Amino acid sequence: MATATTFSIIPSPTTSRLTLRRRSIRCLSSPAPTPPATVLSQDDLKKLSAVKAVEYVKSGMVLGLGTGSTAAFVVSEISDLLSSGKLSDIIGVPTSKRTFEQAKSLGIPLSTLAEHPRLDLAIDGADEVSFRYLGQVDPDLNLVKGRGGALLREKMVEAASDKFIVVVDETKLVTGLGGSGLAMPVEVVQFCWQYNLTRLQELFKKEGCEAKLRLDPDGKPYVTDNSNYIVDLYFKTPIVDANAAGKEISALEGVVEHGLFLDMAAAVIIAGKEGINIKTK
Amino acid sequence: MATATTFSIIPSPTTSRLTLRRRSIRCLSSPAPTPPATVLSQDDLKKLSAVKAVEYVKSGMVLGLGTGSTAAFVVSEISDLLSSGKLSDIIGVPTSKRTFEQAKSLGIPLSTLAEHPRLDLAIDGADEVSFRYLGQVDPDLNLVKGRGGALLREKMVEAASDKFIVVVDETKLVTGLGGSGLAMPVEVVQFCWQYNLTRLQELFKKEGCEAKLRLDPDGKPYVTDNSNYIVDLYFKTPIVDANAAGKEISALEGVVEHGLFLDMAAAVIIAGKEGINIKTK
Repeated sequence: MATATTFSIIPSPTTSRLTLRRRSIRCLSSPAPTPPATVLSQDDLKKLSAVKAVEYVKSGMVLGLGTGSTAAFVVSEISDLLSSGKLSDIIGVPTSKRTFEQAKSLGIPLSTLAEHPRLDLAIDGADEVSFRYLGQVDPDLNLVKGRGGALLREKMVEAASDKFIVVVDETKLVTGLGGSGLAMPVEVVQFCWQYNLTRLQELFKKEGCEAKLRLDPDGKPYVTDNSNYIVDLYFKTPIVDANAAGKEISALEGVVEHGLFLDMAAAVIIAGKEGINIKTK
Repeated sequence: MATATTFSIIPSPTTSRLTLRRRSIRCLSSPAPTPPATVLSQDDLKKLSAVKAVEYVKSGMVLGLGTGSTAAFVVSEISDLLSSGKLSDIIGVPTSKRTFEQAKSLGIPLSTLAEHPRLDLAIDGADEVSFRYLGQVDPDLNLVKGRGGALLREKMVEAASDKFIVVVDETKLVTGLGGSGLAMPVEVVQFCWQYNLTRLQELFKKEGCEAKLRLDPDGKPYVTDNSNYIVDLYFKTPIVDANAAGKEISALEGVVEHGLFLDMAAAVIIAGKEGINIKTK
């Protein structure tokens, strides 16, 4: 079963750096009424969870580097610790071209799954974390990922990692996957994408699913790093059985990957206005 | 259980055309010792099974058009029957750019899965047909397909067809899939293909599998119509459990499709030197 523990921020080689940098974070470790609490922005919360996650990183590790705004804070934090000498001998395996560019520009040594088929640890954000559904705690720390479009590479790298840690702010918690009403992405081959769009929508009739081809700002189909399209699924009610859903989606010919990350995360670090909450299983 | 029936070639609106064209085929319908039997080439056998398969085509059908040398004979035969007025109102859904070009050049009206998500019939070749393994008749008419590189589109189109008929010459029969010792293709995303090549080889250790990236004649990786690579698996001994193998391959992140076509064919038409043999289930 999943357990949830709320940690207050305490000084540590890593977090002390944060408290020095961010006044807002001190509010969490000192709940006294003065000075008045600073309202934490969503970005503050993302940074907070990123810094906490990087405490799991040890020198010499091969690391999966996630994609998205929270994961970018993780990459940046790792770079800082390498620069300051607090970490050394890190090799990163990026999950997207974007992350590759960011990590490269920060001087983090990079590699690939081909050279490092087993990783020690991967850290990445998530779009949804299912913590409770139908009155039950979700024991598998199930996730929706891939709104940033990198779901396939993320899943490949994270599945190859001994430990996968998820970093989110509290707005990502849902009661049942798909529960945010926002996109659950499915990567499909370009060939007859409309056919798969219709089949995906049919698959989730019960959940009132609307399927849409993801478009770029210029109105053309969004193309993934792997030259595929993304069909975004929007649910009126959460997915009833995520495991069954994952299998049914994967069984459709022409589906390359889906954004349900089931039973993959070892821990989810959730930054909220009340502090850091770590769910493990 | 699968049943096997050997048909001799008898005159019909379709086959009579063939007997007029090919002296060799008359030998099958008239086993008399004179004139001396002409040796049938592999191409003759492919044409023979193609012509037999096209007997299943009725006017008004939406047809999946396969890819490869035998399927090309099917497309050509359909075109001939349309030209002669023996067939009308056919719509073809091609399974590759090559087949699209061939059918288009022959004037066959074409469509896509998006416009025709259900097809009446698909006809395609196969690289292997498992008819017997470990002393048992294969009840599922399991196939290996995709040496021509079109496995994904073939599987999409053929899975969407009410009936899928396979046309082969007798050299394609194997005792257990992978038993020919030739390639069983797996389409993988380009990203970290070496990683998936290694994982695929590991998966079939028991079968003495050797995995190789498919190359073009110029030595560069072969790229599928869907911008992916193909890893070809070569087995020393046939795959023991094809259903389990299919699931295990599909579960690898980054695998787009595999060449095991399991329990999909309704009939296999096999042209051999002794005549036409049709296996159904």
